Amino acid sequence: MYPQTLINLIEQFRSLPGVGEKTAERYALAVSDMDEMNVENFAAALLDVKNRLTHCRICGNLSDTEECSICRDKERDHRQIFVVQSPKDVIAMEKTGEFHGVYHVLNGLISMSKGIGPDDLNIDELLKRSEDSDEVILATNTTMDGETTAMYLGKLIRDHCPETLVTRIAHGLPAGGLLDYADEMTLSHALSGRKKIG
Amino acid sequence: MYPQTLINLIEQFRSLPGVGEKTAERYALAVSDMDEMNVENFAAALLDVKNRLTHCRICGNLSDTEECSICRDKERDHRQIFVVQSPKDVIAMEKTGEFHGVYHVLNGLISMSKGIGPDDLNIDELLKRSEDSDEVILATNTTMDGETTAMYLGKLIRDHCPETLVTRIAHGLPAGGLLDYADEMTLSHALSGRKKIG
Repeated sequence: MYPQTLINLIEQFRSLPGVGEKTAERYALAVSDMDEMNVENFAAALLDVKNRLTHCRICGNLSDTEECSICRDKERDHRQIFVVQSPKDVIAMEKTGEFHGVYHVLNGLISMSKGIGPDDLNIDELLKRSEDSDEVILATNTTMDGETTAMYLGKLIRDHCPETLVTRIAHGLPAGGLLDYADEMTLSHALSGRKKIG
Repeated sequence: MYPQTLINLIEQFRSLPGVGEKTAERYALAVSDMDEMNVENFAAALLDVKNRLTHCRICGNLSDTEECSICRDKERDHRQIFVVQSPKDVIAMEKTGEFHGVYHVLNGLISMSKGIGPDDLNIDELLKRSEDSDEVILATNTTMDGETTAMYLGKLIRDHCPETLVTRIAHGLPAGGLLDYADEMTLSHALSGRKKIG
């Protein structure tokens, strides 16, 4: 029922995560109301992300430069590496302000169901970096694929450089978590990971 | 914390209706994961909407052609005009499949608070079309601005062409509406607009 140009744009918006038909329509109609300048800037920003955004050659995080700002930061502890699935995770961790080491972004997880193997991830570089590190913190999600990837990497790094400490982020109840709402796996982790207090 | 190119794209997504910081980040990261081809198509679709999409010269609806497909449709009753605020409303009405006349899209409403007057809307053309019509159905929203616009147009069209029937869509309880949840205005309309049954 919409003109073809609008239908095309609606389809493009639908390719974004979590965007359904109604939302895509709303976005496309909003674009049709925008000034020409704004739409040109929008299109240019899209193309820029493809043409200028790259992955840091050290850690694999998204960057406009060959080496990202964190890897170039001499104030940070480059002997402590926090390994995550995606750039989003780096931002989440940086927001805590509690980590002063560097990151390694795998850009994916090992996944049987999606057919993603170790060769598809940014692992070779991690092994090299592990040699010169004191600690590698495996901080992939606590999902099935995240655990699989952490286990795989843990073994690989221990074999490759036994001197380096390899750790896994803690499992347990989240902040504000209610015991009777937690699943069995979480409770089991919360019990086995308990710590002495006082 | 993000590279500048990504920040730029996040800002662009934020200009879409209902998109907050988190959602815009999610969209921008999704774009950074897309194939180059897909991003180029996305950018082209955006520009196309500005360069090729126009307003139908008869009814003001969005169209790729000088006259939209509804205005060109000879099967429809061109003497019955359904007046709405925006292209979205045309789609909503077409989905009912119950209207076989034509539309007139004002592309806005008279609004004191936003400083939008009659001259900013697609009204001159409506007056001309009203002369050759049997009925003009004022179907702006039942909000304050919608009612103001309908009242204004009603008077204008009656003065301009007294032969033409001018109607306003019915006010009342929506389908599935609960009396004790309805506001006073809606209930008052539902009462005064009551019809004999059986």
